[in-house]
Amino acid sequence: MSKTEKERPLILVTNDDGIKAKGLESLVKMLKLFADVVIVAPNESYSGMSHAITVKTPLYAKLVKEKDGLQLYKVNGTPVDCVKLAINVLLPRKPDLLVSGINHGTNSSISLHYSGTVGAAREGALNKIPAVGFSLLNYRHEADFTEAVKVAEHVVKSILGDKLPSGTFLNVNIPDVSPVKGAKVARQSKGRWVEEFVERQDPRGRNYYWLTGHFENLEPEAKDTDEYLLGKGYASIVPCHLDATNFNLLSYLKEQNYEL
Amino acid sequence: MSKTEKERPLILVTNDDGIKAKGLESLVKMLKLFADVVIVAPNESYSGMSHAITVKTPLYAKLVKEKDGLQLYKVNGTPVDCVKLAINVLLPRKPDLLVSGINHGTNSSISLHYSGTVGAAREGALNKIPAVGFSLLNYRHEADFTEAVKVAEHVVKSILGDKLPSGTFLNVNIPDVSPVKGAKVARQSKGRWVEEFVERQDPRGRNYYWLTGHFENLEPEAKDTDEYLLGKGYASIVPCHLDATNFNLLSYLKEQNYEL
Repeated sequence: MSKTEKERPLILVTNDDGIKAKGLESLVKMLKLFADVVIVAPNESYSGMSHAITVKTPLYAKLVKEKDGLQLYKVNGTPVDCVKLAINVLLPRKPDLLVSGINHGTNSSISLHYSGTVGAAREGALNKIPAVGFSLLNYRHEADFTEAVKVAEHVVKSILGDKLPSGTFLNVNIPDVSPVKGAKVARQSKGRWVEEFVERQDPRGRNYYWLTGHFENLEPEAKDTDEYLLGKGYASIVPCHLDATNFNLLSYLKEQNYEL
Repeated sequence: MSKTEKERPLILVTNDDGIKAKGLESLVKMLKLFADVVIVAPNESYSGMSHAITVKTPLYAKLVKEKDGLQLYKVNGTPVDCVKLAINVLLPRKPDLLVSGINHGTNSSISLHYSGTVGAAREGALNKIPAVGFSLLNYRHEADFTEAVKVAEHVVKSILGDKLPSGTFLNVNIPDVSPVKGAKVARQSKGRWVEEFVERQDPRGRNYYWLTGHFENLEPEAKDTDEYLLGKGYASIVPCHLDATNFNLLSYLKEQNYEL
């Protein structure tokens, strides 16, 4: 292997919109200019799958394409399944980076809890692989990823410069504006989804419900949040942790006699 | 409504093992002694579903049982779907508490990321409902939940005494020993799943993979962790947060020129 080949990083790419998504294609087109890329992604859309894994059915991985330092596998599983299968079965070595996305639609604020894009990035970090999830604030299939790719390139190259400590991963959201004003480090905004279930009746007379709703930012004035920055035309970079412990409450719960 | 009836709290119960699970039944038997209980749970096992939501298909909720202050609905969705549907459609008012479980199997350390039991508790907290997930360290269908129910009763009554601040939820794990030595407040242990995919071949000659593996505690000596306490025969009570931001890294990422 020549020195040049050795120096090319190995990047694992996945998403939750499936192998045919434009967001994935736009991302990979940029990455393969300087990296060997292996895509292991769901065969169809797996939106809203969070950190879910498939335990009841087996997984198939099919090599769909292999060309010029790029491999594309499709998997009948969730984004996290894809990451696990890639690391343990498909990849020749531990990748230098995991990139998830670019998602069609926002994963800012609390939406990251539901997000398969973010789940995949978290799974990378759990396996000590530097990881980042990218999402564009446009749900449409034909969204324009030009600006999002510029932000992604900067963030990816920053991470590859050994600038992301272990035990963390990044949740990056990009506003659907052109040009994007910049990219800022931010904290996750407090928010909630105001759910509205649409009720319908099937031909047999049984009611059924479609999940819908809208997001409400609970701290719209807070300038250090992802939501605020996105609203102002900036991409948001939120460092996320793997430890779910609310350390502030450890002493409090003891004082309140939770212990037995 | 009489004063006595008014004073009975309303508890929403869900799980990820499905409406027929013994862990759910054992939990509800205890809760209904002092509370009105509405169970909204998956019609079958939804293990490993994390915080996933169903966005592609509609949800059905069927009232299976209604008796003596107890209602049981089955839903063709994930634990988080159940919580959303309960709060927005099925319940007469916001519940005083959400209890998820008792899960058949551990959700300590990083397993909470994959857990539907924990996902449901998190969804409760996102909706400003005090919430807790319980898990017994025994995967078997016929596990003995006697000790787990004792721990659950103490924790539930502590929370109902207005002792859980908003914006947090509890992940409680109970060792499979009798008697349980006690219950301690703990932090989440650092750990990882060492995956092993079992490879098989189907009759058409295509390889497929079953996810399996074992858990590895990365800090076995740390006495303040859930894993350590569980190993010593104590139940672990881990307060969890809703904010995924790794605050320690905000300044660091700025210094490393992540911003544009």
